[in-house]
Amino acid sequence: MADRPIVGIVMGSDSDLETMKRCMKQLDEFALPWEARVISAHRTPEVAHEYASTAADRGLKVIIAAAGMSAALAGVMAANTTLPVVGVPMDGSLMGLDAMLSTLQMPPGIPVGAMAIGKAGATNAAIFAAQIIAQGDPAMAEKIAAFKQQQVDKTVAKDNKLQDELS
Amino acid sequence: MADRPIVGIVMGSDSDLETMKRCMKQLDEFALPWEARVISAHRTPEVAHEYASTAADRGLKVIIAAAGMSAALAGVMAANTTLPVVGVPMDGSLMGLDAMLSTLQMPPGIPVGAMAIGKAGATNAAIFAAQIIAQGDPAMAEKIAAFKQQQVDKTVAKDNKLQDELS
Amino acid sequence: MADRPIVGIVMGSDSDLETMKRCMKQLDEFALPWEARVISAHRTPEVAHEYASTAADRGLKVIIAAAGMSAALAGVMAANTTLPVVGVPMDGSLMGLDAMLSTLQMPPGIPVGAMAIGKAGATNAAIFAAQIIAQGDPAMAEKIAAFKQQQVDKTVAKDNKLQDELS
Amino acid sequence: MADRPIVGIVMGSDSDLETMKRCMKQLDEFALPWEARVISAHRTPEVAHEYASTAADRGLKVIIAAAGMSAALAGVMAANTTLPVVGVPMDGSLMGLDAMLSTLQMPPGIPVGAMAIGKAGATNAAIFAAQIIAQGDPAMAEKIAAFKQQQVDKTVAKDNKLQDELS
Amino acid sequence: MADRPIVGIVMGSDSDLETMKRCMKQLDEFALPWEARVISAHRTPEVAHEYASTAADRGLKVIIAAAGMSAALAGVMAANTTLPVVGVPMDGSLMGLDAMLSTLQMPPGIPVGAMAIGKAGATNAAIFAAQIIAQGDPAMAEKIAAFKQQQVDKTVAKDNKLQDELS
Amino acid sequence: MADRPIVGIVMGSDSDLETMKRCMKQLDEFALPWEARVISAHRTPEVAHEYASTAADRGLKVIIAAAGMSAALAGVMAANTTLPVVGVPMDGSLMGLDAMLSTLQMPPGIPVGAMAIGKAGATNAAIFAAQIIAQGDPAMAEKIAAFKQQQVDKTVAKDNKLQDELS
Amino acid sequence: MADRPIVGIVMGSDSDLETMKRCMKQLDEFALPWEARVISAHRTPEVAHEYASTAADRGLKVIIAAAGMSAALAGVMAANTTLPVVGVPMDGSLMGLDAMLSTLQMPPGIPVGAMAIGKAGATNAAIFAAQIIAQGDPAMAEKIAAFKQQQVDKTVAKDNKLQDELS
Amino acid sequence: MADRPIVGIVMGSDSDLETMKRCMKQLDEFALPWEARVISAHRTPEVAHEYASTAADRGLKVIIAAAGMSAALAGVMAANTTLPVVGVPMDGSLMGLDAMLSTLQMPPGIPVGAMAIGKAGATNAAIFAAQIIAQGDPAMAEKIAAFKQQQVDKTVAKDNKLQDELS
Repeated sequence: MADRPIVGIVMGSDSDLETMKRCMKQLDEFALPWEARVISAHRTPEVAHEYASTAADRGLKVIIAAAGMSAALAGVMAANTTLPVVGVPMDGSLMGLDAMLSTLQMPPGIPVGAMAIGKAGATNAAIFAAQIIAQGDPAMAEKIAAFKQQQVDKTVAKDNKLQDELS
Repeated sequence: MADRPIVGIVMGSDSDLETMKRCMKQLDEFALPWEARVISAHRTPEVAHEYASTAADRGLKVIIAAAGMSAALAGVMAANTTLPVVGVPMDGSLMGLDAMLSTLQMPPGIPVGAMAIGKAGATNAAIFAAQIIAQGDPAMAEKIAAFKQQQVDKTVAKDNKLQDELS
Repeated sequence: MADRPIVGIVMGSDSDLETMKRCMKQLDEFALPWEARVISAHRTPEVAHEYASTAADRGLKVIIAAAGMSAALAGVMAANTTLPVVGVPMDGSLMGLDAMLSTLQMPPGIPVGAMAIGKAGATNAAIFAAQIIAQGDPAMAEKIAAFKQQQVDKTVAKDNKLQDELS
Repeated sequence: MADRPIVGIVMGSDSDLETMKRCMKQLDEFALPWEARVISAHRTPEVAHEYASTAADRGLKVIIAAAGMSAALAGVMAANTTLPVVGVPMDGSLMGLDAMLSTLQMPPGIPVGAMAIGKAGATNAAIFAAQIIAQGDPAMAEKIAAFKQQQVDKTVAKDNKLQDELS
Repeated sequence: MADRPIVGIVMGSDSDLETMKRCMKQLDEFALPWEARVISAHRTPEVAHEYASTAADRGLKVIIAAAGMSAALAGVMAANTTLPVVGVPMDGSLMGLDAMLSTLQMPPGIPVGAMAIGKAGATNAAIFAAQIIAQGDPAMAEKIAAFKQQQVDKTVAKDNKLQDELS
Repeated sequence: MADRPIVGIVMGSDSDLETMKRCMKQLDEFALPWEARVISAHRTPEVAHEYASTAADRGLKVIIAAAGMSAALAGVMAANTTLPVVGVPMDGSLMGLDAMLSTLQMPPGIPVGAMAIGKAGATNAAIFAAQIIAQGDPAMAEKIAAFKQQQVDKTVAKDNKLQDELS
Repeated sequence: MADRPIVGIVMGSDSDLETMKRCMKQLDEFALPWEARVISAHRTPEVAHEYASTAADRGLKVIIAAAGMSAALAGVMAANTTLPVVGVPMDGSLMGLDAMLSTLQMPPGIPVGAMAIGKAGATNAAIFAAQIIAQGDPAMAEKIAAFKQQQVDKTVAKDNKLQDELS
Repeated sequence: MADRPIVGIVMGSDSDLETMKRCMKQLDEFALPWEARVISAHRTPEVAHEYASTAADRGLKVIIAAAGMSAALAGVMAANTTLPVVGVPMDGSLMGLDAMLSTLQMPPGIPVGAMAIGKAGATNAAIFAAQIIAQGDPAMAEKIAAFKQQQVDKTVAKDNKLQDELS
């Protein structure tokens, strides 16, 4: 992480780290420099406010916010920045339905781009961040295209493996 | 409202006012001085922070927060005050289930006392505030006891009316 | 518990004890004297009635009621006292959704302050009780402020630890 | 209602009356004498306790309890009587899902026989009461058999009417 | 089971047996003779029809039907008998929500008395059956009263045990 | 309907007719002869049994069953025939969630092909029936292909109309 | 699988294979030749389009599509073929509720016959496919009738076994 | 719309237009040129594929996809482009819960940024698109900052109006 981070990952609790490592790994695959913080909308609201308010000036381009239960973190980020905020609902309680609704049902004016619950959402948040950053970065757009082709190849390989098993 | 308010009502939107008038009316019945504000956790986060942070010093004893959808307002209040915060989920979307979960499912450390969805919750928030304030106020405790007796009387009256209709 | 209890914890079943120990521990941290009882709204309704009816006279200031399934206990407490009642939905069935709705959806006139489902709610019930009791107790208000600062410190410490791990 | 009632209908609110008239009408069709009361588990808990405790001695054979939201009424009845209690969840909030779970999810030891939400449940509660009472009453069993035959006839008539319309 | 059964337990699958043993045990405690059958509304519909149609003539007084998923069994029983039918939703899929709605939401005319999901419902079905049978059986009514007193005693004992542990 | 029907539509109630007219209209568009019956799994179980048991011999190739609440009708049809049964959940209560789960969650061995809730499902049941019947009927396969092309054309026409409005 | 397949099984992920083996086994019991593919509506959309578009010409008569989460696969199949498509919601997340709604709630014009969630649905998809194929195949209809009789026999055997255990 | 569009709005049905006009109006406020199309993932899959595949080359920077029921449109867009796709669940059925889960629960590899259900989501999709586009466009970032300030001003104005009304 020698490079100045352009993606900020904030987690409401250190217990979200294991899930969000999928996000970090995926960002690394895109060679997108990131930083990660444990910041709670409810326990450290001033840190949250500070983080979001200064994010753009510090060079961040996207904020990814992961939180569970009454997941206010993504919304608090979005309230205090003009950057796009991507929300990942954690599934520690009620299968993540509480965090999903808290993340998704943002009132008009303050959008959060909500991802799937849990690990799928953690991975997808990284890809979505890359897609956002690719707006002004043709090289990133090519990386994403290559990533999509890899997905095709992997799925085709799984299909071929299945044919081998069945024959 | 000549008296200095001791209950602060915050609403995420002016569209919550009609529902919250039940709360105001009930507080008036207890002669509890209140103030009401339109403050959004997402649209005016700094006002929200300021309001909660100074609430105790301004003489408030309870904060009642009403919000819908991703109802972060009660949680943001609770994050920034040591006063008890009472949350009322508004039912503008998904029958209020989104606001209910956002209000109720607070992480450990930052409680919100969640009321029923909508009008029932608006009324009950006022009564609950009175019960809290009655801790150090024997006269208020007597008012609540009288209110409870009124409820008994009203229900008995409805029962008597039903007997008349059926006989 | 040499001191006369001022918080009453009632549980619908002894199987709720493990969860509610979080509540007891948190009350101990605030040095709030408490008592705990196994009382069922459905199995021992007369004990429940007696407990709630006499709670204020016995010196209690808050009742915390924990119950699962058709969680009527908090409501029965609220029906029979003027004290504030805090409800904690237990998660033994349907992920606690049944207990959550039974605890939260109280009719107008009889409020219960509902906490999060399970352990988070058990901890928060103790903090919320402290916030209520702090109304007439400046020392308790200071303890809560200190507790909130501890939460800030702990979250910042977790954040620092994460930075160490990532660097 | 010259006869001494053998079915007791209790409603948590007079707003439940319109729905429960379906129950009363159906009981009348079976010539089962009934009484109806507005009794709230939360507003008039002592009346509720008194009603249930004395129901068997007063000659009731079944109690039908209708309530909405946190529908504790059927459970409170069941807690205080050995008679079978039939619960009808009212649909005033959350489509009746809150009342349904509160009525159905009774803990082991205290059963309530839960009916469908709203009007369907109100009608069915009367039929179910008749089926219970028919235990010791062969004439009632014959009435129920006749009622079932009427249902067959009505459905066949609707089917015939449809055939006429379609031909 | 030398006595002629008066309670019929039908299960949609032999996998329901473990749960329904709670029902059998509870019926045994009331000395209520029962029979148990594996009958599927979907796999053996003619057996189901036959069983329900002849139940009253064979001396049964109550039918308890346990089924999961699209739990049609209780409804099919109710469709083909004038006896009261008690339904127990099994929790093999979707936490039992599918079976709960299928059991509870009976159309007007064909009631099923729905119990709680799973083991709690299995126990309660037996008690509810006893309450129904007690209509014409004063000795059974006394047994139920004694059972209720046992529940009081057990809960009080648990409460006393808790006091010992806490002191 | 001079032709012998090959699709049988059964409805649990005549109140389902308005919704199911969409199904009838769509079958007419495919020139598929149909019959429609009001048959209730719960009110006229013997008619239901008879209808399903004889359906194949009477020349039916598909049964479409529409029912609401505890929607047992499709399952009862499927239990008594080897024909494919298509289920349409009606949305009279709980937004159709009860009927949806009752229709879909069939136990292994007795499939029902569940359609969307309400009107969308009614239309789709007709199309699905046509797709089934097209197995042995090349002319029907061509009709379905033409229908799909019409859908393309209609959607393209709507798109064109939108372009006109926006330009 | 020497025979040319007439049932096509497509799975969104190779992790669906274990569940779908129940489908394959059941198809084998009916001696219905099948093929199975790993094709993702989202990862390999062109393969999905190609597969569905050519399915009928390649001799397939039914497509069975299994997918989880936002289960678009069955819908994509249905969009690109005139063959009947049977959908099996996988239960990897949210108990399969997400996949169930995505599979079932198809818009008017493009039906998917949705099966139960998970293993029950996998088995039933095979039976439902057989019922569809039996339209033009009397031998298959006989196999299905025999299969239904086996189910009767197995359930009766389980019932007999229970009688042995209880006596 | 003289400018070449950089935001593509696709709607599954023309019935989504009224809701999505909020999106168009908001894009107009940001002076972001857009195009809008009626394209169905299920009815016109080839148009959908073509639209998404060529979107980047045609100069689009963001795709906003609105769909209801089994809302596959956003996912199909995401499957066929490297651009960021923003999904808006429509609330025509089941309060939008079906479309919400279909839009949000994307499998790992293919993200969709899901917005709130219905009108709130339509407005927010436009703002989120502006935030994405602002990556490489400082003027747009300033517009968003101004928009956020307007929201503050509007909310403060509503608060002031409330103070006037209450005083």
